[in-house]
Parts: sequence; structure tokens; C-alpha cells
Amino acid sequence: MLVYGRNVARDLLKNNKSIKKAIIQEGFDEKDIIDFLKSNKIPMEIKSKREIDNLIDGVHQGIILSIPDYQYKSIESSYDDEIVVLLDHIEDPHNLGAIIRTCEAAGLRSIIIPKDRQVQINSTVMKTSVGTLDNMNIISVSNLGYAIDKLKDNGFWVYGTSLENSVDYRDVDYDGKVAIVIGNEGSGISNIVSKKCDYLVKIPMYGKTNSLNASVAAGIMVFEVIRNRKRS
Amino acid sequence: MLVYGRNVARDLLKNNKSIKKAIIQEGFDEKDIIDFLKSNKIPMEIKSKREIDNLIDGVHQGIILSIPDYQYKSIESSYDDEIVVLLDHIEDPHNLGAIIRTCEAAGLRSIIIPKDRQVQINSTVMKTSVGTLDNMNIISVSNLGYAIDKLKDNGFWVYGTSLENSVDYRDVDYDGKVAIVIGNEGSGISNIVSKKCDYLVKIPMYGKTNSLNASVAAGIMVFEVIRNRKRS
Repeated sequence: MLVYGRNVARDLLKNNKSIKKAIIQEGFDEKDIIDFLKSNKIPMEIKSKREIDNLIDGVHQGIILSIPDYQYKSIESSYDDEIVVLLDHIEDPHNLGAIIRTCEAAGLRSIIIPKDRQVQINSTVMKTSVGTLDNMNIISVSNLGYAIDKLKDNGFWVYGTSLENSVDYRDVDYDGKVAIVIGNEGSGISNIVSKKCDYLVKIPMYGKTNSLNASVAAGIMVFEVIRNRKRS
Repeated sequence: MLVYGRNVARDLLKNNKSIKKAIIQEGFDEKDIIDFLKSNKIPMEIKSKREIDNLIDGVHQGIILSIPDYQYKSIESSYDDEIVVLLDHIEDPHNLGAIIRTCEAAGLRSIIIPKDRQVQINSTVMKTSVGTLDNMNIISVSNLGYAIDKLKDNGFWVYGTSLENSVDYRDVDYDGKVAIVIGNEGSGISNIVSKKCDYLVKIPMYGKTNSLNASVAAGIMVFEVIRNRKRS
């Protein structure tokens, strides 16, 4: 996987992450990064701006790192959690990154995502999650419905966010082990997943728009669930 | 201002927005958009993909529209509101767009932003706010501290989000007219603004990270304030 940008590079270097190769733009002069790459004997390739621009579609600031692909976890690793979040086909990497950051800040450990038609862990997700990814288990499953069944078998109550046939999210007791399902940016939660949920809840809308950004909705839901559980 | 993308274009056309000019990529074949541009006599320029790529830095999908710049409102327009949001130098257009969408969904009318060192209304903001911008007053001020003074003169209590010297956001009664200040993505609320706030509140953090994405924090705060005011 290719990741890029000075802050991402510094974060990986500082935390002694495995880096296979660094691709540096001619004239790149961030001395601390160069020194670190040299002292850790990380192979460096110097390329022209044009060559680097062709490698990735984003603001690279003159540095790209090749790192091992993210190792997804299995669903079993979530069974002892108190609260887990499932994403029903989130497409925008900024949303996935912000959701990872929110869940980590809220003290959660696991996020479950489907293998297909869902953005996977990439460079933008890493950047948007600002270093919180290491502290989280991202679980990849072939079938979200099957994952929900497994969670139920392990004592979870499943709450889906939906505008239809749902109750106000403030009127629900989120006792016991809780799984929160957040829907796709455009189409929300799928019918199959919706039918598997124990409860459907909605965040009330008072404007012309009838939906929130997926990461904002996830933040409101996660902090609602922990609202009466933990006090700092 | 140049805006781009098929959905943005359709949204502007559907709502009869003022469009000065359309710039279309050779071979662009979304018939409904072309027909609409023709029937509304909007000037069209056909350009090569390379020419269009050079005009903007983003996924244009073959269509760019030139529209009048956003007309910011004055602070007086917010004095009758119940809840307003102030942004203390938000830099990321995705965050500003998501905050506009959240505030609109929550039934708010006004967002106050500083003129300098703050992302202004641009194409990315419009896209991320998914058509909610029209329903909101975005107020531009030279000095956020002065704006807070004016809000206080008009009966608002000002709540800033800050990790230091602050109380749990769930332990506060948000009675009366409320102004919520959301800080910069990296540095939070500035000292000057912080001192002007009547209350400093924090969303408790339970992980390694000590902050949320700005738009997620705004969403949690706004929905906390309206929590006990409105019931759908």
C-alpha cells in the first residue's frame, strides 16, 4: 500500500512502522525525514514531480512510502467488546477515517466492514484517522448479515440507524452489549441488514435535509450509547 | 466561483440557480444536463479533458459551472436565532461542508466564520453540504471576539469546546440562547476566544487520541444542545 504526505511519513517513522520503500521527490528537503530514512536503512528512490504525481492521486508533499497492506482482523476478536460499530457499505475514505478516529476516542476497539462495495483501509483513511488506526481492530467480513447473526449469538443487541420504522435515538436504553450499524452515505442501511437489527433508531431532523454525514451520524450515535455508561 | 461534478450541476439546475457559464468536456453525454443548459440559454464552452483538468483540482466528471460568489450575511441576521455555531478557523472544506449540513439538519439558521485563516465557501464546501447551503446564513466577520461580544449583547450564552478548564458537555444546561464555538482542527479554540466564552465544555475522550474530527465534534455538540429542547 502506498501512503503519502509529510505528517503521515513522520507518524509512521516515529512509531517505527514497517516501511518497505520511500519514494522521494527531487529536491525534497525535510531533513528530519531524510535522516530517519537513512539511519533506518530504508531504501529510497528519487523521482521527478511528474513521476510522483502519476503514482498517486492526492497531495503527496514530495514523499510516498510503500508499507505492508493493512491486516484485517476476524470477527471473533470483537466478541468480548461492549460496543462495536458496523458499517453498511461506507464509500468515502474521509468518512471511514473519521469514524475510526471517533470510535477510538470513544474507547471502542472494533469496527466491522464488508469486503465488497465498501472503502477499505487506504492512504486517505490512514490520514483522516490521524494515527488512531493502530489502536483499533478493523474487521473485514464477507457478509454483514452473517456477522450480525454471530454478534447476536455472542450477546449483542443490534441497533440500526434508519429514518423509517424507527424510534428517536434518545428514547432507547442502550444496555448490555451494543452493536451500532451505520448505513451507506446515499442509500442508508440495506433492507437485509435492517431486518436483522433488533432496534431501528433515528436522529431527528429539523431542516430541509433528511440525513447527516455518515461520520457525524456515527459520532452522535456512539457518544449517545456511551452517554450513560461511562463518566470521566 | 467554479463548481463541478454532475450532482452539483443537477442540483443547481434543478433549483434554478444563477449560472454564468458551463464548461463541458468533449464527449460529455449527460443528456438531461445538456438539455437543461440549452433550454435555459446558459453559455456553454466545450474543452478537452486536459484543459478542464487544468482549471480545477478535483473530480469534475466532465462539467464545471461558473456561478456567482457566495454572498455572506451580516451578524445582525443571527440575533433572533436560538442556537448559532461559530467556527474558530476551520481549515478543511469537508469539515465546513459537513458542519453546514449538520446545522441545517438540526434546524439551525446561522454559522459564523472569520474572514481570514478560515476556509470560505467553495466548490468542495458546496458539494459536502449536499444542497443545504441555501437554507443557511453563513456570516463572515472580521473578528470572532467582537462577534462574540455582539452575541452576548443580544442575549446569547457562549459555550466553547476545550479540553482544558472545561466541564463534561453532558453536565451543562443549555438554556436560553446558545452560541457554540468549535475550534480549529489542529489547535482548537484560540486563547482570546476561549476567554470570551461563558462556559468551556469537553466531550470526554477514552482512547489514545484526545480529539475528534471538527465536524463530528460539532455534530455531537449541536445535537446535545437541542437534545432537551425539541422532540420530534
